[in-house]
Amino acid sequence: MSLSKNKIKYIRSLKEKKFRSLHNTFVAEGTKLVFDLMSTCHCQFLAALPEVLQAHPEINAEEIVDVNEIELTKATFLQTPPQVIAVFYQPEQNFEELQLRGKLSLALDGVQDPGNVGTILRIADWFGIDQILCSPDTADLYNPKTVQATMGAIARVKGYQGELASLLTELNDLPVYGTFLDGSDIYQEPLSTEGVIVLGSEGKGISRETEKLINRRLLIPSYPVGRTTSESLNVAVAAAVVCAEFRRRQG
Amino acid sequence: MSLSKNKIKYIRSLKEKKFRSLHNTFVAEGTKLVFDLMSTCHCQFLAALPEVLQAHPEINAEEIVDVNEIELTKATFLQTPPQVIAVFYQPEQNFEELQLRGKLSLALDGVQDPGNVGTILRIADWFGIDQILCSPDTADLYNPKTVQATMGAIARVKGYQGELASLLTELNDLPVYGTFLDGSDIYQEPLSTEGVIVLGSEGKGISRETEKLINRRLLIPSYPVGRTTSESLNVAVAAAVVCAEFRRRQG
Repeated sequence: MSLSKNKIKYIRSLKEKKFRSLHNTFVAEGTKLVFDLMSTCHCQFLAALPEVLQAHPEINAEEIVDVNEIELTKATFLQTPPQVIAVFYQPEQNFEELQLRGKLSLALDGVQDPGNVGTILRIADWFGIDQILCSPDTADLYNPKTVQATMGAIARVKGYQGELASLLTELNDLPVYGTFLDGSDIYQEPLSTEGVIVLGSEGKGISRETEKLINRRLLIPSYPVGRTTSESLNVAVAAAVVCAEFRRRQG
Repeated sequence: MSLSKNKIKYIRSLKEKKFRSLHNTFVAEGTKLVFDLMSTCHCQFLAALPEVLQAHPEINAEEIVDVNEIELTKATFLQTPPQVIAVFYQPEQNFEELQLRGKLSLALDGVQDPGNVGTILRIADWFGIDQILCSPDTADLYNPKTVQATMGAIARVKGYQGELASLLTELNDLPVYGTFLDGSDIYQEPLSTEGVIVLGSEGKGISRETEKLINRRLLIPSYPVGRTTSESLNVAVAAAVVCAEFRRRQG
């Protein structure tokens, strides 16, 4: 078998959100990521080198084709072609499963860079956070760049896209954290084992509407305090420092 | 005045290391970054919109031209053209200034992604670390992608490129830290106020040769301990969590 022109065209069309939404699918590339996803998502289509197919008889997909490197090069979004490319169905967004009490969750407010969003999913996974709320102007979780940057975490962390204000509504007794340059030193503040940590866009920070929902304003202190430094940390870096500190307290 | 074809060609040539080395220069784009650099690096050439030049009479460069957006679009490495593009001389690598005792420094061992290297400089700057040692196979500090990712931190953090083994030699009484999956929980270990924190490549980790120099092996614990998660953190993310914890202890 081989990869038809139409299939290559289909895979490449999934770079765009409108086609991902139309087909309700997304692309994942590389053995690690594809096999991580295989355990939680339904695979529509998988193209791989013959040796990969032989080594993984457990592969479960609606359609499987063996391909050569030239075909993978034509279909890939990566600079170096992977050994396997797969198309998965997007998991359903089941808002009834969304459970904000009793655990920590993240909320992304206008984080537009897909690489940052993917890196934040990977951080969440590392620190045992399995839910991420995403505002409508946050990069799509199923953008190929996001998916690749998660390094497989997208198989374990659930994303919910919607208006943060409505997702967080009726929870005003729950701690909602955000980082601000005028916040309180995170190392001096009590941190809860439940609640939502909001991360804002790099350029604009947290939106005014979302800021109203935040009842615990935190600061990651620079060192030494008051020195002229970079004005901020990358949003994924800030996410990591904050999540690490929440988990250190629980450790 | 305007931006000559030759000048555009010169700027664009600086995407490649061989031309950066030949001219001993590098490119920076955007007002924040360019003006941060102006305070510490010598500017060879600056092209900006007339309104930027008017607003900044303090600009000091060997050659200054006012340009329009079309010219900036032709010269830029960015997706959205900036208001200013400048070429700076690379600061001299003065190894005599390198001072490893009495403070914390970072060492990058084969970190190949320029975006990660730039983000790590920005993290170092935030946490008051002003020296970064880079192995020869680490992405060049003056790669335009590195420079942009530093968001100005490259003006304040000094980079030293060379063999880590020789840069760190004769310092075997100094703590040299590295993160490993079999290291000791960073939150349980004593952390010094001086020493070097080594960060390895994402794919290969810390090289064997460099590993021999490390005398304190740390682990960033995942949560909960022992759970199946992403196998590792992005190198910049790991850098941030480690630097934050060193500084928390000193805070």
